[in-house]
Amino acid sequence: MKRIVVVGGVAGGATCAARLRRLDEEAEITILERGPHVSYATCGLPYFVGSVIPRESDLLVATPKLFQERFAIDVRTGHEAMAIRRIEQQVVVRSLADDKTYHLPYDALVLAPGASPVRPPLPGIDLEGVFTLRTVEDARRIIERVGKVGARKAVVVGAGFIGLELVENLVGLGLEVSVVEKAPQVLPPVDPEVAGVMATVLRNNNVALYLMEGLVAIEEGLVVRTTSGRELAADLVVLSLGVRPETRLAREAGLELGPHGGILVNEEMLTSDPRIWAVGDAVEVTHVVTEQTGLLALAGPAQREARVAADSICGRPSRFRGVQGTAILQLFGTTVAMTGASERSLGMAGMLGYSVVHLHPGDHAGYYPGATPIDLKLLFRPYDGKILGAQAVGRKGVDKRIDVLAMALQMGATVFDLEQSELAYAPQYGSARDPVNLAGMIAANVVRGDLSLGSWEDVISGPGLVVDVRSPEEFERGHIPSAINLPLPQLRRRLGELPRDRQLLVCCQVGQRAYYAARLLSQRGFQASILSGGYRTWQDLTA
Amino acid sequence: MKRIVVVGGVAGGATCAARLRRLDEEAEITILERGPHVSYATCGLPYFVGSVIPRESDLLVATPKLFQERFAIDVRTGHEAMAIRRIEQQVVVRSLADDKTYHLPYDALVLAPGASPVRPPLPGIDLEGVFTLRTVEDARRIIERVGKVGARKAVVVGAGFIGLELVENLVGLGLEVSVVEKAPQVLPPVDPEVAGVMATVLRNNNVALYLMEGLVAIEEGLVVRTTSGRELAADLVVLSLGVRPETRLAREAGLELGPHGGILVNEEMLTSDPRIWAVGDAVEVTHVVTEQTGLLALAGPAQREARVAADSICGRPSRFRGVQGTAILQLFGTTVAMTGASERSLGMAGMLGYSVVHLHPGDHAGYYPGATPIDLKLLFRPYDGKILGAQAVGRKGVDKRIDVLAMALQMGATVFDLEQSELAYAPQYGSARDPVNLAGMIAANVVRGDLSLGSWEDVISGPGLVVDVRSPEEFERGHIPSAINLPLPQLRRRLGELPRDRQLLVCCQVGQRAYYAARLLSQRGFQASILSGGYRTWQDLTA
Repeated sequence: MKRIVVVGGVAGGATCAARLRRLDEEAEITILERGPHVSYATCGLPYFVGSVIPRESDLLVATPKLFQERFAIDVRTGHEAMAIRRIEQQVVVRSLADDKTYHLPYDALVLAPGASPVRPPLPGIDLEGVFTLRTVEDARRIIERVGKVGARKAVVVGAGFIGLELVENLVGLGLEVSVVEKAPQVLPPVDPEVAGVMATVLRNNNVALYLMEGLVAIEEGLVVRTTSGRELAADLVVLSLGVRPETRLAREAGLELGPHGGILVNEEMLTSDPRIWAVGDAVEVTHVVTEQTGLLALAGPAQREARVAADSICGRPSRFRGVQGTAILQLFGTTVAMTGASERSLGMAGMLGYSVVHLHPGDHAGYYPGATPIDLKLLFRPYDGKILGAQAVGRKGVDKRIDVLAMALQMGATVFDLEQSELAYAPQYGSARDPVNLAGMIAANVVRGDLSLGSWEDVISGPGLVVDVRSPEEFERGHIPSAINLPLPQLRRRLGELPRDRQLLVCCQVGQRAYYAARLLSQRGFQASILSGGYRTWQDLTA
Repeated sequence: MKRIVVVGGVAGGATCAARLRRLDEEAEITILERGPHVSYATCGLPYFVGSVIPRESDLLVATPKLFQERFAIDVRTGHEAMAIRRIEQQVVVRSLADDKTYHLPYDALVLAPGASPVRPPLPGIDLEGVFTLRTVEDARRIIERVGKVGARKAVVVGAGFIGLELVENLVGLGLEVSVVEKAPQVLPPVDPEVAGVMATVLRNNNVALYLMEGLVAIEEGLVVRTTSGRELAADLVVLSLGVRPETRLAREAGLELGPHGGILVNEEMLTSDPRIWAVGDAVEVTHVVTEQTGLLALAGPAQREARVAADSICGRPSRFRGVQGTAILQLFGTTVAMTGASERSLGMAGMLGYSVVHLHPGDHAGYYPGATPIDLKLLFRPYDGKILGAQAVGRKGVDKRIDVLAMALQMGATVFDLEQSELAYAPQYGSARDPVNLAGMIAANVVRGDLSLGSWEDVISGPGLVVDVRSPEEFERGHIPSAINLPLPQLRRRLGELPRDRQLLVCCQVGQRAYYAARLLSQRGFQASILSGGYRTWQDLTA
């Protein structure tokens, strides 16, 4: 009989233990969890703060009792793993209730310690009214604070996914919310023009957004001071500056750590000790597109890692394929999502030979009421069309397109595959050419050499001539400053007005007419490129 | 300069012509369209009847003027192609306005004649008040009839996708609607238990559903008589019995037809004449999973075919990959969708070595308000896990999961790939284990031999013992007649009560607890299989 100890019972730990039982009915399985709960819904915490999820009990996905009854797993909440004695194969455990220490022997040990919120050592960081949000207890403390002081103003420091979810929920509670973010954009994982749309959404919902401003100090009162000298009075401050892997146990046990400070594991989630596996937010993972290692605190990958670790412990061949970085956020009715690499992550990986198309198709057929545009961005390799990543933002249908593209990316699809996809079409749900098809078609035109992409940077500084092929009325309502207007219906008879020795950067509202125009022009001997995504992308880029 | 004539200007024809222009600015391109419109939204017609789409002009995606201005394409509406003179490379055209005939020469000819509604030669089929729905004019006639006679009762004959869309819209107009369908289920492309859910949706919305009843005659008055002798009085009868490919032109020109009566084409959409291509509802297509040829009237494939034909005409390598049969229908707020093969189509193709799992996950995380179940069915090859098809029904998130699975199927994914997918998770949109992941996990358990699937047929006639592992309370509320109840939490200590010489068919509400129980039992030496999808699937199967 195998003795298996799992340290950490939230996402990865609980999943791993349950799968271990399904694979091995004989094993003795113990979960050690420092906190009072196992298997609770971390991703629901912002919504619990905002009363969207009304009861704390809603967050508790499973209880120790359920683990005992269903899986005959011994869950010890309030028990902290203090140390690992690798030679003796024992975990030193402290029971928090009675402060007693005991030793738990293992044949296999799984570390799922998670990550803890970053709290920079700045003045005032420990003042009353300053919070982080990582546990049910954290959420309860924030709720209590809002109620007790009758909070009216909140400052959220950090504009990542969780920070902004919290912002929405605090606004929902009637608070006036300011966001302080030291980066020049919100949501660092997505590219600036996509993040810009979400910044506008925040501002339209009366959130004060202070970009490129870091936190300097929090003063009694509470007043948040930023790097620009700004002072923001608050009844409540929440630090949402990301998380740091909990590696004390691993480090002190002499397990190898990776370059980003996470626990180093192989594809079977095995650490440098052949009897110790690690999963979840504490381990370093490899990105499937950029092949860079890093830290990623997401529940989906943690679940997959946990299954791989359980398989490996039970002697089954299993391999974690890495992470894609698929992520999604809904904010005031607008959704932003991504999968794969961004321009930034490709740049950081030195993978500069990529192409980008922007498009703005409706979420469903335009002839059926209620269609809303999706701003879709596709990154791909121009020499073979392999998909590298995608980002999208819109009010409807964003999750679907990113999930389809996530599956495509996982399977190594090219833009030609997207062009050929057969997705479900009824007028409520899509178009005969779905946004995914359209993205594939545009990108495939690029790969086949039928379409040349102009660079948005060249619009401002390049020698090209911007030709806007929209109607004069559309042009009048707003256009790129240097553009000339030559409506598509007049193009064939007015070719003589265009220079043959300059690059023509063809632009329309969303890109379609520019494509038609560019095909016409290049067949007539002009050097024509399109500005992908048209005037709408220009607006996003310059917002 | 190439002269290209396109016969038919609705979906495939219009797309093909536009792409031809993008590929060849020099060509002379003419579209011949018998009707008054080009490029209108056939898929919107039921919603136009129901005033969901308010204006007829909303359906007109493009006009002849737009084709002329944008693409320099000569669109001749009201012009019918009467004959093809293949030797002379000419189309004989009749102008309907003045009944004049002329000859149009071509270097390349594209046939996109579409399909026409089936009208069986039954008594009364041509009576006033009996309609089909295929064109804008058809829709207008139905609307007029509803208004003129103050129609209160409608009979729709045929319960396919378009028939049921029309049913919903007629109900929306306040009509009492009966549906007559000669098959034992609605929506023949999906399997019976999935169709059963939609039948319930129809009945819950006061639609009278007469299955296994064919149309015999329509009597003056109007009275619809069915094969069972039933008589249904109606103010309005709509025949929705499918479509027949328009092949007169091709047939009379001596082009080869396929076994199903459609125009035969190769992968480049080329007919048996090397200067004639054909696309859209009139051609025979090959299913990517079953490799069977057949007819399929869907806009998405027609668009893809049209692009391939244009490429081929312009000498570019291009190949139509076949059809997947992805389809979707929304009915009274419930959505049903499918991709790939169904059990029926696999059976008809003689591909009997498939496995099926049913599951009923929530569309999003249960801890976030508003989650609703998706009934999901996955078909796969048990020896290697290759995905063969999927069907789903539910109130939310159905389109997304079928689209993700459509992409997976297109890319040749296995159930192991689904298990490993990284889809976008926030509590509004999914779960850390998305329904797609769950389907993959269950199916992968089957492929790996960790889980044996009991046959639902065996529940009634087989020698197995049905063991329901739900709580006594759940069991009391309804259970499979022959089942015994042994709640999962008691299973380990009550193993002695179960026979070791009989197959145990383990069942719960949706399948998850049955899986846990089956793993336990099989590791303890019992012959345990699960009833995939649990009591909920039983209810669907026996509805």
